[in-house]
Amino acid sequence: MSERFSANYVLRTLDDADRAAGIIAGEQSSGTFVSTPGEDEALKARSAARVEMLEEIEDAGGPALPGSAGNGPIRSWRLRLSWPLENIGPSIPNLIATVAGNLGELKQVAGLKITDLDLPPSFFGTYPGPAFGIEGTRRLSGVTKGPLIGTIIKPSVGLTPAGTAELVEELCAGGIDFIKDDELQADGPRCPFEERLAAVMDVIDRHADRTGRKVMYAANITGEIDEMQRRHDLVANRGGTCVMVSLNCVGPAGVTALRRASHLPIHAHRNGWGILGRAPDNGWSYPAWATLWRLAGVDHMHVNGLTNKFWEPDDSVIRSARHCLSPLHPDHPYTVMPVFSSGQTVLQAAPTFAQLGSADLIFCAGGGVVAHPAGVAAGVTSLRQAWEAAEAGVPLAEAASRSALLQQAVEKFS
Amino acid sequence: MSERFSANYVLRTLDDADRAAGIIAGEQSSGTFVSTPGEDEALKARSAARVEMLEEIEDAGGPALPGSAGNGPIRSWRLRLSWPLENIGPSIPNLIATVAGNLGELKQVAGLKITDLDLPPSFFGTYPGPAFGIEGTRRLSGVTKGPLIGTIIKPSVGLTPAGTAELVEELCAGGIDFIKDDELQADGPRCPFEERLAAVMDVIDRHADRTGRKVMYAANITGEIDEMQRRHDLVANRGGTCVMVSLNCVGPAGVTALRRASHLPIHAHRNGWGILGRAPDNGWSYPAWATLWRLAGVDHMHVNGLTNKFWEPDDSVIRSARHCLSPLHPDHPYTVMPVFSSGQTVLQAAPTFAQLGSADLIFCAGGGVVAHPAGVAAGVTSLRQAWEAAEAGVPLAEAASRSALLQQAVEKFS
Repeated sequence: MSERFSANYVLRTLDDADRAAGIIAGEQSSGTFVSTPGEDEALKARSAARVEMLEEIEDAGGPALPGSAGNGPIRSWRLRLSWPLENIGPSIPNLIATVAGNLGELKQVAGLKITDLDLPPSFFGTYPGPAFGIEGTRRLSGVTKGPLIGTIIKPSVGLTPAGTAELVEELCAGGIDFIKDDELQADGPRCPFEERLAAVMDVIDRHADRTGRKVMYAANITGEIDEMQRRHDLVANRGGTCVMVSLNCVGPAGVTALRRASHLPIHAHRNGWGILGRAPDNGWSYPAWATLWRLAGVDHMHVNGLTNKFWEPDDSVIRSARHCLSPLHPDHPYTVMPVFSSGQTVLQAAPTFAQLGSADLIFCAGGGVVAHPAGVAAGVTSLRQAWEAAEAGVPLAEAASRSALLQQAVEKFS
Repeated sequence: MSERFSANYVLRTLDDADRAAGIIAGEQSSGTFVSTPGEDEALKARSAARVEMLEEIEDAGGPALPGSAGNGPIRSWRLRLSWPLENIGPSIPNLIATVAGNLGELKQVAGLKITDLDLPPSFFGTYPGPAFGIEGTRRLSGVTKGPLIGTIIKPSVGLTPAGTAELVEELCAGGIDFIKDDELQADGPRCPFEERLAAVMDVIDRHADRTGRKVMYAANITGEIDEMQRRHDLVANRGGTCVMVSLNCVGPAGVTALRRASHLPIHAHRNGWGILGRAPDNGWSYPAWATLWRLAGVDHMHVNGLTNKFWEPDDSVIRSARHCLSPLHPDHPYTVMPVFSSGQTVLQAAPTFAQLGSADLIFCAGGGVVAHPAGVAAGVTSLRQAWEAAEAGVPLAEAASRSALLQQAVEKFS
């Protein structure tokens, strides 16, 4: 096995960049802070990390991370490290230890962001990737083109199973394609998972009998391994078509275990991503981080949305969504369906389609559905009309002039 | 169930602090960005998060996180939020979604650090905490007082199983108490886990026959759930006394699953912690983060070390170690053994004991053992002598004047 894997970083350092890169490569492979007897040249040749690239780029400014050492000034570098796969084998947990382990604690690191990962074929042989992806999601939801129009059950928490089912009744009657639990609602005593699932699926089945199309319900199964497995099986046995998991709350090994025992699309929620991805000089970029989960085998990945209620600028959102739709590897695309959410309304349909160039996505609007002045059905219809207009190249104002529901939505959310 | 759980934060915001705190509390419980029909007063009363405290503190300076909104200037606040346990039940993954989920992405958050968690008894009823802790570790290792003197197998990667066993032979002959794999070494093709375990345990057993005391070997079982279980069982069946796991690489659900099926102390490695904990205004503080893992049930927690090779100042290291040794709850102490490592030598024994006030710890030295001029046995002996002096209140220089090996170590590492 002569495969290597590599990671790209933006490194900020106050130190000499060659020295800093060498220390990072040593820390993350065969070195330690003093020479040890066993680290001979032959061992280094087979096991050491290599600095493949170190190029200065413009520094974005801002302070160094605390405890940074060096004579300054702070400078920024594109750093590419590679490792022999023989060090770890194709293992996501051990990949993380290698590319994102102790290196962030080094004094020579005044800032470090992992920008992307490049993985050899063995990883794709070991990890299955998404079992459903775009095609499977369209098949199960019966939405053959355009985005799945979706919503999040709100209020996030506090509804009983019966209250949840009442809302789902309204949503199904209104023609929704996709419904997800909020990430705050899993299996709390106020709204136990099993009761909620039963109540919601009764409604979904009744509407499926009417329409011939089963609304996809991403039931939040986030929990311990055995709990997730039990809840997954409940969903599958009840005829549900999706499960949702909070990636950062469960972790890589839990998500991989779920995928291996799952018969349903896995809707991956990214809550907690702000801690990992918001700071410009610390943590992960979305493409590097999403690579792990696509490999593990989720089917839908949250990417936030344009003009969202969160901090993230639009270009970052679109870059994330493009990553989801671009092959991870030429022979192993592992593409997943991006999920747009957070403050989404009819106003974001056209710019999302224009900037992404695709409607292979789930478009989740919470308030954007239920807060439509004419009710939930009107909310769903207006969103679908906005997307049809966007895909047809019809300006929103023109489309709204032909639909009172769309016009109301435009006025409500402008 | 009327229990509540709470989290403390340091919040930085450019916005009005009351409004920002209200938006955070809403986002993390029953609210969304527009009023929804279901969020009535009764629902809010039973499910909404409460702002329990909001007090201004001195701001540490530095820029806001990108995308922060408000009229500024940036100000810092101690924020305490509480939630009804009924929202989630006693579940670590869903606790994380609630206290560390979407809130870090809000525009009103210009910086947010989770400083600690306060959990009600139900969590302790659900999660077992450490099965071995300090007492069990001392019993299995035969070290009845003072720190376990330990080391990390170095070079981190690149040794074969036979090469690893040769080093372990030297370490056991030298009187070491504890040996751990490096976090970069798990089950790579260069050094397969099963072969390494067999080779290492042969050596450990032979020395145990001689000394009556089995060196504790923290075998790095980090991997997928089934792999970890298989490796754990191999260790247990082979008579090993410890397994190691990289917390951030496996994640909460994986660690909980391991604990529930484990018969051995779990040595918890924190690699990747820099991403979560180094920035002063983003992520987790060690006490909040460590609470999760102590609850899940690990036995040893890495805390870095004094005068370490990493970025972290000593007071932060000691605060982490004190957390490990302080009860999580008066009735459920869940204390764990802190692991000092990273650039540790004879020089850090006295200040560590003086500042921590305890020797209930594992003191891991890599280069500090193997790079002793007179060899590995001398490295171990000198570390033990340094700790005996520290506990007896004898200054290092005085102890070194009575031991050539200690003197050599002092000279080498000063």
